[in-house]
Amino acid sequence: MKTTAVFPGSFDPFTLGHQAIVEKALLLFDELAIAVGVNAGKQSLFTVDERVQSIKDVFKGDARVRVEPYEGLTVDYCKKAGATHMVRGLRTVADFEQERLMAQANKLMLPSVETVFLLASPEQTFISSTVVRDVLKSGGDASNFLPEIKP
Amino acid sequence: MKTTAVFPGSFDPFTLGHQAIVEKALLLFDELAIAVGVNAGKQSLFTVDERVQSIKDVFKGDARVRVEPYEGLTVDYCKKAGATHMVRGLRTVADFEQERLMAQANKLMLPSVETVFLLASPEQTFISSTVVRDVLKSGGDASNFLPEIKP
Amino acid sequence: MKTTAVFPGSFDPFTLGHQAIVEKALLLFDELAIAVGVNAGKQSLFTVDERVQSIKDVFKGDARVRVEPYEGLTVDYCKKAGATHMVRGLRTVADFEQERLMAQANKLMLPSVETVFLLASPEQTFISSTVVRDVLKSGGDASNFLPEIKP
Amino acid sequence: MKTTAVFPGSFDPFTLGHQAIVEKALLLFDELAIAVGVNAGKQSLFTVDERVQSIKDVFKGDARVRVEPYEGLTVDYCKKAGATHMVRGLRTVADFEQERLMAQANKLMLPSVETVFLLASPEQTFISSTVVRDVLKSGGDASNFLPEIKP
Amino acid sequence: MKTTAVFPGSFDPFTLGHQAIVEKALLLFDELAIAVGVNAGKQSLFTVDERVQSIKDVFKGDARVRVEPYEGLTVDYCKKAGATHMVRGLRTVADFEQERLMAQANKLMLPSVETVFLLASPEQTFISSTVVRDVLKSGGDASNFLPEIKP
Amino acid sequence: MKTTAVFPGSFDPFTLGHQAIVEKALLLFDELAIAVGVNAGKQSLFTVDERVQSIKDVFKGDARVRVEPYEGLTVDYCKKAGATHMVRGLRTVADFEQERLMAQANKLMLPSVETVFLLASPEQTFISSTVVRDVLKSGGDASNFLPEIKP
Repeated sequence: MKTTAVFPGSFDPFTLGHQAIVEKALLLFDELAIAVGVNAGKQSLFTVDERVQSIKDVFKGDARVRVEPYEGLTVDYCKKAGATHMVRGLRTVADFEQERLMAQANKLMLPSVETVFLLASPEQTFISSTVVRDVLKSGGDASNFLPEIKP
Repeated sequence: MKTTAVFPGSFDPFTLGHQAIVEKALLLFDELAIAVGVNAGKQSLFTVDERVQSIKDVFKGDARVRVEPYEGLTVDYCKKAGATHMVRGLRTVADFEQERLMAQANKLMLPSVETVFLLASPEQTFISSTVVRDVLKSGGDASNFLPEIKP
Repeated sequence: MKTTAVFPGSFDPFTLGHQAIVEKALLLFDELAIAVGVNAGKQSLFTVDERVQSIKDVFKGDARVRVEPYEGLTVDYCKKAGATHMVRGLRTVADFEQERLMAQANKLMLPSVETVFLLASPEQTFISSTVVRDVLKSGGDASNFLPEIKP
Repeated sequence: MKTTAVFPGSFDPFTLGHQAIVEKALLLFDELAIAVGVNAGKQSLFTVDERVQSIKDVFKGDARVRVEPYEGLTVDYCKKAGATHMVRGLRTVADFEQERLMAQANKLMLPSVETVFLLASPEQTFISSTVVRDVLKSGGDASNFLPEIKP
Repeated sequence: MKTTAVFPGSFDPFTLGHQAIVEKALLLFDELAIAVGVNAGKQSLFTVDERVQSIKDVFKGDARVRVEPYEGLTVDYCKKAGATHMVRGLRTVADFEQERLMAQANKLMLPSVETVFLLASPEQTFISSTVVRDVLKSGGDASNFLPEIKP
Repeated sequence: MKTTAVFPGSFDPFTLGHQAIVEKALLLFDELAIAVGVNAGKQSLFTVDERVQSIKDVFKGDARVRVEPYEGLTVDYCKKAGATHMVRGLRTVADFEQERLMAQANKLMLPSVETVFLLASPEQTFISSTVVRDVLKSGGDASNFLPEIKP
């Protein structure tokens, strides 16, 4: 059976930690849809178009990966994308509890899609979009936290 | 000694999980006051009147239950309501830590009222007002998460 | 409806923290059975008879409290004791998770009995039977952790 | 690329929760090796042969599943089994932290094998081998916690 | 080697819990800089000038303590202040996880500064600026949570 | 004031993670006593003499460090050693909760000694004596987890 996973997030911005999760997911699923959430109620640092484009730049040339914006419920995007799985990275206990609640609520709404969890690497555990935004807003250098763009 | 418990919350909206806590509390206390918090600083999906009314609809006919809006500190409402206890539901570790801090601060401010904790059922652990609001805002079907209204 | 709660534990030994939970429980339940577990597989510091007797000494004269040893499943003891509730103290996140699992398993085996959780006081949170046993084994003074016996 | 996952555990005994993890894993991996750990230092309720046989009985007829005992490091078994992944179930925060440490230590020792985490269902979260052993030792009925054997 | 620690926070307001951390830090470091964060994106109850002044009032006469506002990254303030360490208080598991992420990100950006953690006292664990703000906003009495000002 | 910290543990064996904590502690305290606990009730992999000697080998030539075995309560050793502080490493949430309980109980028994917490580095978070013992018992190579001995 072909597997298609959705990796949903706001990716504001997409970090080295996210990139590592994608790379691990590609050893597990036939196709991966990176779904960039548009959250009307939340102020983002980067526009959804900037976020989508920067992720496309990281994985360009890899036909298994597509990058798309989405609005509304993640389960609705999963249906549209023909997903068999969702994939999420786990860094902390707080992540885990939040993700467990979301996965169980999603499972009730869309029983055909199972959530699969992958771990951040130890040396990337502390990298989060929140930290990167704080660094960028203060005019700091965030290159240690962000993917290198292939030329 | 007659026991009167206050069950405080924002109930935006009141979920199946909240209903289960109330039903368990009614096996423990003589009277239960469901106290619907008005938080001036926070945007709610439902007005406080809508929230109070919908909870009244769930428990109509049960003389042990009253439903009231309140502003300000929960301990001040408890004093006014003649409470002997507060009751709270626990779902997650994050809930527990937050609730422990609140209960201990409340105890310092109002030593005569003790907080009692009840558990969500396993199959309702993932139901939260936040999840329900997300579903409703996206035009989804939240009926799996909400109480049936008695006709 | 008369409420009867079982407070199960190994109480090896019964600490100031346990005493506080009992006192809070007596404001909530009509009767309380303190059930002292006999765990064949675990080495205890005090015999079950010593543990039962020392708890009886703390609550002597209070007709609402009985203290009994038990073997086997806690739910079986609850049935025998005519319990409507179980009561447990919560100190830490680790406690909470362990207690949630136990309460949910017990609920599946004996649906008529609900578990109610009470908090340790902030200044007693760090008191545990394990700490007291360590102090006693090293010949230290554990009186700060233990109930005063009424003369 | 063919994926082969190892699901290691002591499975003393194999519960409904373990069965659900296996079923979810079979939607993700081409082959699954259930590896039953022999822990010389720990007393088990069932012999390793009993545990292996009872798991074989659950999945008999499914050629993708093999069940084997192992001793020593899990990473050494993974090498021998040609594993591309390990799979583990997550129930609680305590599980998560323990599993993260193990997965990171295993990754250092065997970088080619990634650990994938799946969630227990909400209504199975409280099922653990420890609970089942307690029930069985007390002569209770554990059938609610155990897989049905196909005739 | 002379040690200089930075104790960063928003201190909105500075509580008894913060005061206890400072007093413990003064037994450990030669100098302490209390750094009051100016967060442009967040509404505060007290202005940064009020917060700085009220902390100065608490420690006036102690030449080892200085109190300063700062904007931008904490690591940049640490560089400017000649810090050898950062100091943070830990109350809850949620604190710990958040602090660990911050400390690890800060360490990557400024390897010469190590974060040191001190514990709140048990009877102050539940005191947080958030609780104090809630009490003050509701017109309650927060004096149990705040330092006494030396006349 | 001269500061003397005690770093207590069973160190069975002393890992790279322990070594990092010692190195961080030496930037904070004037003297450090590494106290190797003798736990009569627990089976250890290495004898207390082997553990003391291997730690001495790591820090030989550093006059600020002494390594000693101890029996009984850690607070009693601290008194004997003239300690002003205890130092402990934190890796996980489970560590944190356990350490908080211990530190608070110790503080009640010996108020003059404060516990200070330092973090493991991200890439050493998963290193524990337990993992090392498992590797060694299975005949594996644990050199990635252990300090290099200075020749």
